[in-house]
Amino acid sequence: ALTRDVGRLHESELGDLLEALDPEERTRLVDLLGDAFDFSALTEVDEGIRLEIVESLPNDKIAIALSELDSDDAVYILEDLEEDDQNDILAKLPFTERIRLRRSLDYPEDTAGRRMQTEFVAVPPFWTVGQTIDYLRDDEELPESFSQVFVIDPTFKLLGAVDLDRVLRTHRATKIEDIMRDTSHPIPAQMDQEEAAQIFEQYDLLSAAVTDENGRLVGILTIDDVVDVINEEADEDIRRLGGVGDEELSDTVRRTSRSRVPWLTINLATAILAATVINLFDATIQKVVALAVLMPIVAGMGGNAGSQTMTVTVRALATRDLGINNAARIIRREVLVGLVNGAVFGVLIGVVAGLWFESPQIGYIIAIAMVVNMLAAALAGIFIPLLLDRVGADPAVASTVFVTTVTDVVGFFAFLGIASIWLG
Amino acid sequence: ALTRDVGRLHESELGDLLEALDPEERTRLVDLLGDAFDFSALTEVDEGIRLEIVESLPNDKIAIALSELDSDDAVYILEDLEEDDQNDILAKLPFTERIRLRRSLDYPEDTAGRRMQTEFVAVPPFWTVGQTIDYLRDDEELPESFSQVFVIDPTFKLLGAVDLDRVLRTHRATKIEDIMRDTSHPIPAQMDQEEAAQIFEQYDLLSAAVTDENGRLVGILTIDDVVDVINEEADEDIRRLGGVGDEELSDTVRRTSRSRVPWLTINLATAILAATVINLFDATIQKVVALAVLMPIVAGMGGNAGSQTMTVTVRALATRDLGINNAARIIRREVLVGLVNGAVFGVLIGVVAGLWFESPQIGYIIAIAMVVNMLAAALAGIFIPLLLDRVGADPAVASTVFVTTVTDVVGFFAFLGIASIWLG
Ligand SMILES: [Mg+2]
Ligand SMILES: [Mg+2]
Ligand SMILES: [Mg+2]
Ligand SMILES: [Mg+2]
Ligand SMILES: [Mg+2]
Ligand SMILES: [Mg+2]
Ligand SMILES: [Mg+2]
Ligand SMILES: [Mg+2]
Ligand SMILES: [Mg+2]
Ligand SMILES: [Mg+2]
Ligand SMILES: [Mg+2]
Ligand SMILES: [Mg+2]
Ligand SMILES: [Mg+2]
Repeated sequence: ALTRDVGRLHESELGDLLEALDPEERTRLVDLLGDAFDFSALTEVDEGIRLEIVESLPNDKIAIALSELDSDDAVYILEDLEEDDQNDILAKLPFTERIRLRRSLDYPEDTAGRRMQTEFVAVPPFWTVGQTIDYLRDDEELPESFSQVFVIDPTFKLLGAVDLDRVLRTHRATKIEDIMRDTSHPIPAQMDQEEAAQIFEQYDLLSAAVTDENGRLVGILTIDDVVDVINEEADEDIRRLGGVGDEELSDTVRRTSRSRVPWLTINLATAILAATVINLFDATIQKVVALAVLMPIVAGMGGNAGSQTMTVTVRALATRDLGINNAARIIRREVLVGLVNGAVFGVLIGVVAGLWFESPQIGYIIAIAMVVNMLAAALAGIFIPLLLDRVGADPAVASTVFVTTVTDVVGFFAFLGIASIWLG
Repeated sequence: ALTRDVGRLHESELGDLLEALDPEERTRLVDLLGDAFDFSALTEVDEGIRLEIVESLPNDKIAIALSELDSDDAVYILEDLEEDDQNDILAKLPFTERIRLRRSLDYPEDTAGRRMQTEFVAVPPFWTVGQTIDYLRDDEELPESFSQVFVIDPTFKLLGAVDLDRVLRTHRATKIEDIMRDTSHPIPAQMDQEEAAQIFEQYDLLSAAVTDENGRLVGILTIDDVVDVINEEADEDIRRLGGVGDEELSDTVRRTSRSRVPWLTINLATAILAATVINLFDATIQKVVALAVLMPIVAGMGGNAGSQTMTVTVRALATRDLGINNAARIIRREVLVGLVNGAVFGVLIGVVAGLWFESPQIGYIIAIAMVVNMLAAALAGIFIPLLLDRVGADPAVASTVFVTTVTDVVGFFAFLGIASIWLG
């Protein structure tokens, strides 16, 4: 009964079920299901859980199960395993299967070649629509579902593609070469998955051919997997901006704590740097304690304005909306916004601080420091991500720490520096 | 020549071209292209640019152009216009067209009904595959492209759906009802687009039926538009976490500056709140200036640890990976991680501060304050987004400001409070 009920679940529902269970329950469920366990559910769970389940099974069983999956799902499961296990499992697979999976695994992680599926439908250009439909009806080896028919020459060189709706709407006698599109946006196997996803978005593709260096069709990318890539990449950006690494929700306390330490360590170092700036002005602070009370406001407002600019910049870089033809305009805009908002909030906090500590001087000082720091925030918020992008680093990963370091240091230095000159 | 070259561009390429031009060049290009201007490019540009172009054209022309678009694209352009213009343009459209667009516009923004396209292919269950193929070949009114055939009864009640590959692989004599899937995951028109996108992801759909309250097919959602929804929603979360509103890259200095003011104002208020906490301890700071130097470290580390926890929580809520069956585990984990990392960094900064100011007491005080604040950070980072989600607010929108307020206030209060008792 269990086998029947669970067997009816969609792979992603089975994946959710596995994630909801305790580790022991998980392996027990997989054991109970035996051959009825749908391995494709493993592509829907966290890496930690996937490894845990796969490692609890003998390699023979894994090999049999993988040979029933689409090649992209099999690769997705294989890529996380130790090299020994990988080789052992591959060795147990039939020759052609093994070659296909090997080829995908040979492409670097996060490339189109690694993510592609090697099952696809391809026909020669001289076939008619009728021949093609008959082939689709009779061939049993075809992939489970597909939305495009690719057109190739005898050496597997990609010639074009035809959408299924086009096939259905064309009379049987028409030749495939007469209805195929040549602008099928083939994706080089070496291309980063993020770039490939952008091509899907831009041209509203359902599937796309993946080609090797010689323009030969080696596999296809499908939109459902591209949607996963889009989510992964958005996730990555959000996590990196928040200072969180590759941790997963299913991770233990130990792993989570350890994965967050590097980011906190960098932040500790930059916080100490900011503290040494404050320490330069300890005499002034002792004389006017109001400065200690107000300085976090200057630094904090700069930090927030800086993360606004940085968020916009990082996002625009990720979506390729920011490029050489508009960078100058955006830089100019951000600098002006920094000055305008610096003036607005400088006046505001100047009045508040002046009244609070009954000292117009303190009001002027904090107002000027605010303008300076908001300008610094704008410059840091736009140039740091641009620079990181230029040197090939991911702007999302380190921007936050650099930007807040700048706004802390400049904020404290400007406010306390002006105060020490003015109030002596 | 211009018309020919630009006419060859994909709508999204034309959109990119428009975004790269200056406002005057944009209207000139649209004028020059005249009837050759592909209105669907307007769905690929920022809202500001779309309005600018549409408002430069007479309503007659807009009506003609919209009637040639898919209904979802027409609605996408219409929804941003003033109600007067909307009504005027709709009045110029043929009756059935007008009714269709009206219906979409009547559904609230960000629902499946608003995003759906009303062009789809539907057949009765008793047709054969052969009849269906002949209908697809001969009917001229069909949508430009489609990946599914829907099955309906005479009242438009949705009975099922058949993927095109299934149609192609089945013999002509087979009846549609024998090959249709009934689990086609129909999407209620009132459903939020984000939820609809999650159904597409979960079940790897290419298109889905949108149904009204009576289960009647009113339109379809297609994966290319769902991909846009996924990107919009990820974008929204990233922006909200970064304190940026609905601004666009093409916005002017004035608009950008104004749209960032609310967030900065809230932050100013909370920064002043934190400053009043510091002010409580001004006497202690005057006695021991080292406290002023060190206090931003305690607050800052808490802020960073808090945003790590908050990022994980907000993201897990957005992807529906955090729910009642694992909330307790995640809360427990985050609290423990807060304590562990609080202890690690407490000891570290305690040693550094003790040596720096040659005072073991200061070392102890900052260490204890760090543990307290990291714990507060963990609690704030997890409970604030959970609470916002529970009351139906978007956790991404306000979490950052609440979390950093907590870590600033608790950080200053713990550090200066302990110091004033101990050193007081
Ligand atoms: Mg999941
Ligand atoms: Mg899958
Ligand atoms: Mg993986
Ligand atoms: Mg698109
Ligand atoms: Mg796949
Ligand atoms: Mg990447
Ligand atoms: Mg990225
Ligand atoms: Mg479109
Ligand atoms: Mg809109
Ligand atoms: Mg999926
Ligand atoms: Mg559409
Ligand atoms: Mg939304
Ligand atoms: Mg959202």
